[in-house]
Amino acid sequence: MSLIVVGSMAFDAIETPFGKSDKIVGGAATFIAWCASNFTPVKQISVVGGDFPQEELEALAARKVSLEGVQIKKDEKTFFWSGRYHMDMNTRDTLETQLNVLGDFKPVVPDSYQDCEFLMLGNLAPSVQLSVIEQLKTKPKLIVLDTMNFWMEVALDDLKKVLAKIDVLMINDSEARQLSGDYSLVKAAATIMKMGPKYLVIKKGEHGALLFHGNQVFFAPALPLEEVFDPTGAGDTFAGGFIGHIAKTKDISFENMKTAIIVGSAMASFSVEKFGTQRLREITRADIDARLQEFVALVNFDIALV
Amino acid sequence: MSLIVVGSMAFDAIETPFGKSDKIVGGAATFIAWCASNFTPVKQISVVGGDFPQEELEALAARKVSLEGVQIKKDEKTFFWSGRYHMDMNTRDTLETQLNVLGDFKPVVPDSYQDCEFLMLGNLAPSVQLSVIEQLKTKPKLIVLDTMNFWMEVALDDLKKVLAKIDVLMINDSEARQLSGDYSLVKAAATIMKMGPKYLVIKKGEHGALLFHGNQVFFAPALPLEEVFDPTGAGDTFAGGFIGHIAKTKDISFENMKTAIIVGSAMASFSVEKFGTQRLREITRADIDARLQEFVALVNFDIALV
Repeated sequence: MSLIVVGSMAFDAIETPFGKSDKIVGGAATFIAWCASNFTPVKQISVVGGDFPQEELEALAARKVSLEGVQIKKDEKTFFWSGRYHMDMNTRDTLETQLNVLGDFKPVVPDSYQDCEFLMLGNLAPSVQLSVIEQLKTKPKLIVLDTMNFWMEVALDDLKKVLAKIDVLMINDSEARQLSGDYSLVKAAATIMKMGPKYLVIKKGEHGALLFHGNQVFFAPALPLEEVFDPTGAGDTFAGGFIGHIAKTKDISFENMKTAIIVGSAMASFSVEKFGTQRLREITRADIDARLQEFVALVNFDIALV
Repeated sequence: MSLIVVGSMAFDAIETPFGKSDKIVGGAATFIAWCASNFTPVKQISVVGGDFPQEELEALAARKVSLEGVQIKKDEKTFFWSGRYHMDMNTRDTLETQLNVLGDFKPVVPDSYQDCEFLMLGNLAPSVQLSVIEQLKTKPKLIVLDTMNFWMEVALDDLKKVLAKIDVLMINDSEARQLSGDYSLVKAAATIMKMGPKYLVIKKGEHGALLFHGNQVFFAPALPLEEVFDPTGAGDTFAGGFIGHIAKTKDISFENMKTAIIVGSAMASFSVEKFGTQRLREITRADIDARLQEFVALVNFDIALV
């Protein structure tokens, strides 16, 4: 069994110009697990409070998500985030953050998780991400890390330590500019790859994603959607599709990473269709295959016609 | 001989965060002609003043751009535009506009231009674009129209009349939202296609371009560039590559339009590398072919790996 996923499991309350959710289940590792478990078994590392719904844990377990590495702190409360999206659905304001159990989270890698080939470090404090890497006795075949501007601001030194130990970094375009100090994404990619990661994925929301490796670059579009209902977790879902496909195929070539980016984009396009993880819970393998074919139609062209 | 190009021939003065040009030759029809003449002979319709450089006209004629439809008003001055780009190179302020000869431009379609199969209406007053369509005795196989937000504000009724008579409309994302009143580009496309055009190209600058037709959609990325030196004329060059490829192949299928969009994107990626039309004057067929292969590498993935 080959994929470890690390990240938050949380409650979210979301407002968009089109609607408002109750307090619903969210968190990076939750979205990643719901998504990646379509492709491969998952070994989850996270922490929740006594208020986290038992049914959610059971639903994940039923999808071959191992929860041995998920600490349940019965007398504490689960991490809570509340935010409001702007009209463009790409930008948002945080209304409230309650760290709760996440405040002093010390991840423990269970013995049964050792020798995993793939490690997905979802967005979380870089020191926590680093702690998981250091607990692994064998270096995974591929370590993928997702992070955000917040950690560049409050924990840049820690972040740089983690960057030196990972293979693939996933950030969005404004974070790439912030981390590198370069406005051009091509220059930013070159600067960031010198910090450690040999592969860099720059997510551009509705404008798709770029994959850089050395002098190579690959671009995957986002599917043009009539409506984006809730972008929360789209980046996590993208990460889950990417690492899920890689873990399933056990192929870390650049060619296969291109396909993995398309899988991530397809999965993210489902995620935004409903609040929280709702859409991810509904979709079938046939839905996924059909959406992948939409991506083929979206970008395929016949250069022989030139 | 098959392609008529209509549009401005002008002087531009450009400021970017990285440099400043003298008063250089520009204008929609100039960029389109420099670009499309790589693929097909061009029959130009425009107007210039006595101050427009003779060498420029000769250089275009040497590329099989017929200038019979270009009025030269010896005692008047050529259209002049001056603008300053912001740091993102996607937005700009107009510093000065001198309409000059463009103010009362009445295009005349020469007899030798009749029976052209393809018509490219570059950005210009909709009434002028309409006048050209009405002068043609045979409806072209394909009419492509480029326009901008300015005409939506000052000449919407005229614009709607032209839209009812064309096949392909090219506008950018904010213009698509403005024209349709829809924020979602998928909804905007559906609304706009009801106004007349059966095909809609939505240009998103560095984020690529979308081609809509019925329920079909195709996406072409922009090439990620280390530096964008001068975006002026990128949209016109894109249009020139699109219609140039279509006119060369005489194939107006959706499949071939996809390839045409890629050709347009490739040509636009050259255009922005230097001020004005400079880069378009230098490139060879081998340069174009090499860049087209970069686009293949940029978007090609193997779905069989899923």
